[in-house]
Amino acid sequence: MPPGQTLATGSVGTVETRYVDLPEAVRLDCGRQLRPVRVAYETYGTLSPARDNVILVCHALSGDAHAAGFAKAPSGSTRDGFGAEDRDGSAGKGLGWWDGMIGPGKAFDTDRFFVVSTNLLGGCRGTTGPSSVDPATGRAYGSDFPVVTVADMVRTQRAFLDVLGIERLAAVAGGSLGGMQALEWAILYPDKVGAVVAIASTHALHPQGLAWNSIARDAIMRDPAWQGGHYHGTGTAPGAGMGVARMVGHVTYLSAPALAERFGRRLQSADDVRYTITEPEFQVESYLRHQADSFVRRFDANTYLYTSRALTYFDLARQHGEGSLGRALEGVSARTLLIAFSSDWLYPPAASREIEEALRALGKPVECHVIEAPYGHDCFLLEEARQTPIIRRFLAEETPS
Amino acid sequence: MPPGQTLATGSVGTVETRYVDLPEAVRLDCGRQLRPVRVAYETYGTLSPARDNVILVCHALSGDAHAAGFAKAPSGSTRDGFGAEDRDGSAGKGLGWWDGMIGPGKAFDTDRFFVVSTNLLGGCRGTTGPSSVDPATGRAYGSDFPVVTVADMVRTQRAFLDVLGIERLAAVAGGSLGGMQALEWAILYPDKVGAVVAIASTHALHPQGLAWNSIARDAIMRDPAWQGGHYHGTGTAPGAGMGVARMVGHVTYLSAPALAERFGRRLQSADDVRYTITEPEFQVESYLRHQADSFVRRFDANTYLYTSRALTYFDLARQHGEGSLGRALEGVSARTLLIAFSSDWLYPPAASREIEEALRALGKPVECHVIEAPYGHDCFLLEEARQTPIIRRFLAEETPS
Repeated sequence: MPPGQTLATGSVGTVETRYVDLPEAVRLDCGRQLRPVRVAYETYGTLSPARDNVILVCHALSGDAHAAGFAKAPSGSTRDGFGAEDRDGSAGKGLGWWDGMIGPGKAFDTDRFFVVSTNLLGGCRGTTGPSSVDPATGRAYGSDFPVVTVADMVRTQRAFLDVLGIERLAAVAGGSLGGMQALEWAILYPDKVGAVVAIASTHALHPQGLAWNSIARDAIMRDPAWQGGHYHGTGTAPGAGMGVARMVGHVTYLSAPALAERFGRRLQSADDVRYTITEPEFQVESYLRHQADSFVRRFDANTYLYTSRALTYFDLARQHGEGSLGRALEGVSARTLLIAFSSDWLYPPAASREIEEALRALGKPVECHVIEAPYGHDCFLLEEARQTPIIRRFLAEETPS
Repeated sequence: MPPGQTLATGSVGTVETRYVDLPEAVRLDCGRQLRPVRVAYETYGTLSPARDNVILVCHALSGDAHAAGFAKAPSGSTRDGFGAEDRDGSAGKGLGWWDGMIGPGKAFDTDRFFVVSTNLLGGCRGTTGPSSVDPATGRAYGSDFPVVTVADMVRTQRAFLDVLGIERLAAVAGGSLGGMQALEWAILYPDKVGAVVAIASTHALHPQGLAWNSIARDAIMRDPAWQGGHYHGTGTAPGAGMGVARMVGHVTYLSAPALAERFGRRLQSADDVRYTITEPEFQVESYLRHQADSFVRRFDANTYLYTSRALTYFDLARQHGEGSLGRALEGVSARTLLIAFSSDWLYPPAASREIEEALRALGKPVECHVIEAPYGHDCFLLEEARQTPIIRRFLAEETPS
């Protein structure tokens, strides 16, 4: 594991997730309107009087609004940031999922910036999603929840920031699906974004990534406990299927060499194989089951489905450029920082390079860094120390008052 | 798709699967003995009077004894070789899974060799496996079937060949799990094997491969219809879980560029996305579901579990070398041909190179060819034309009377 940021220095301290109810309905790409919409959020640092030092941080598939600091009331397993519990197991309970990146003196420096983090639309950690109550029925939406897109998530963030009185972002940043949101921001609201930081992300997931997401969703929907998406309130949930989905996802987040280094072919038993089909024989088998179990305890299966669908739909060229990435990016005015990791095969560096080239061809300010690191897609959560100087230098050009 | 062998020339014609009941129990690595054991097999070509022209062909996870020619009675979906139906969809119904490699003038030339193919121990296509009747109960073994290893499969083949009066193999050949069996043969019966042809195989699956297999097995066992492994005769089967297992496997058999070339991000609908969670939106999603459905119709879930477990256990260094691959191979006397494919990330060329180096260090005759080809692990079924000259030249040195 790479050296992590220490917790004692640079922590934003204890934080509490708050909630805002949007005053108006959110218009969705699918044609429906969603109302009411509540947004869960946290903030770190101090808003400048000119309100010009705001960085919006966007989370990935399984994250939430709790990006930094310690949760005020860590409610058992549901309050673990996945950087803490799911990934390297080294951090304390209740620590935000990007705590190594957000805080005084860190990449997103709360001595200078007012960092805002929201739970995305369709989420299960406070923002309106499939497990929220449908006002039309008085029961959870379940699979009646409208299919949402990354653009819908961004429109919701925009409406939320209006409530906070924040008109413009100094920067919008995120990794993976979070990076997609950041890129979408630069296109939907070109005059409202000073800078984009898109890490381990892409303009459109490649076909193998579509396949993995499809398998994960099918694993959930094939679980009889999914009940057509209406399991909320039935006392059961498709944990078996979602566990499989999570295991598939988890392996795609890591690299083959990282698995080899960490687990090799080491057996659970000190002696030899035990000739069992049902029990884990190899340590990597036991590890995957543990990952699945802990994820199932803290995450909603429908949110997994909707979020996975949104990230597979995401395709800047299709959505905004009639098939041309360059055309999609024509209106961007933000400076763009792209970071990718050499061993990330789910969001490979080639995708970041394509964005870089398209922006450069348009004469837009862009830089792209490919960090040599062995941990696969998870590098965006693990390689904080190496991303920090790149991001700090890039953001230094944004000059909040 | 690469150019396939034509069907009109070089076919072994119509063949029929036959069965042999072994006269004695098979002693298994787990300590149990299995009896009765039936073996399903096919043969192609003519046994020489000296019985010295035999090539045993070993199949992979989802294959069967029907390796070449047309099945006499193709029983719908259950008689499709996976080279035909599951992989490229181009071949006719009932064609053997390695038909492009076995026949007159082909890689395994039936004008010279007597090719024998068996369904492996634990299988579901005629050889005794979990769906066979347990004589102790009169019902299907289900998960009471003993856990078998690749060595157990090879011992079963050995006992089967004894029944046929075949003492020695000119060669033993296979891809993937079939290659594991071939390598195991060279160690267990060094004086009974003239040559080994191990294609897209390994001496021990790497940890990411362990992970994929673990996820596939968990997908089956988490399906409530698995019923602890005793679904035979209940009228239901864990098809939902096995479908997920197959989809995971299928993506690991292909390469990311192959998926990109074949499907890209093309949508099912000509127009745009349809905003659906449950229906396939991308062509690759629809393809995976089709693969899953057709596999579920023809394959037994418990056989999948047992065979997957066997191939994860397979580890020549652990089994035979106290951790040393070189030591494990010390007794090998067969000439060895290794073929790997550049884009195969499940059984990568590095593993074949390790075997090559270990054999070379021991002064054993070995050659290793890495074929540049884009289709991933499936190349061993698809790149028949490019393997053929390598194998023919290698086997020319075996001189049956």
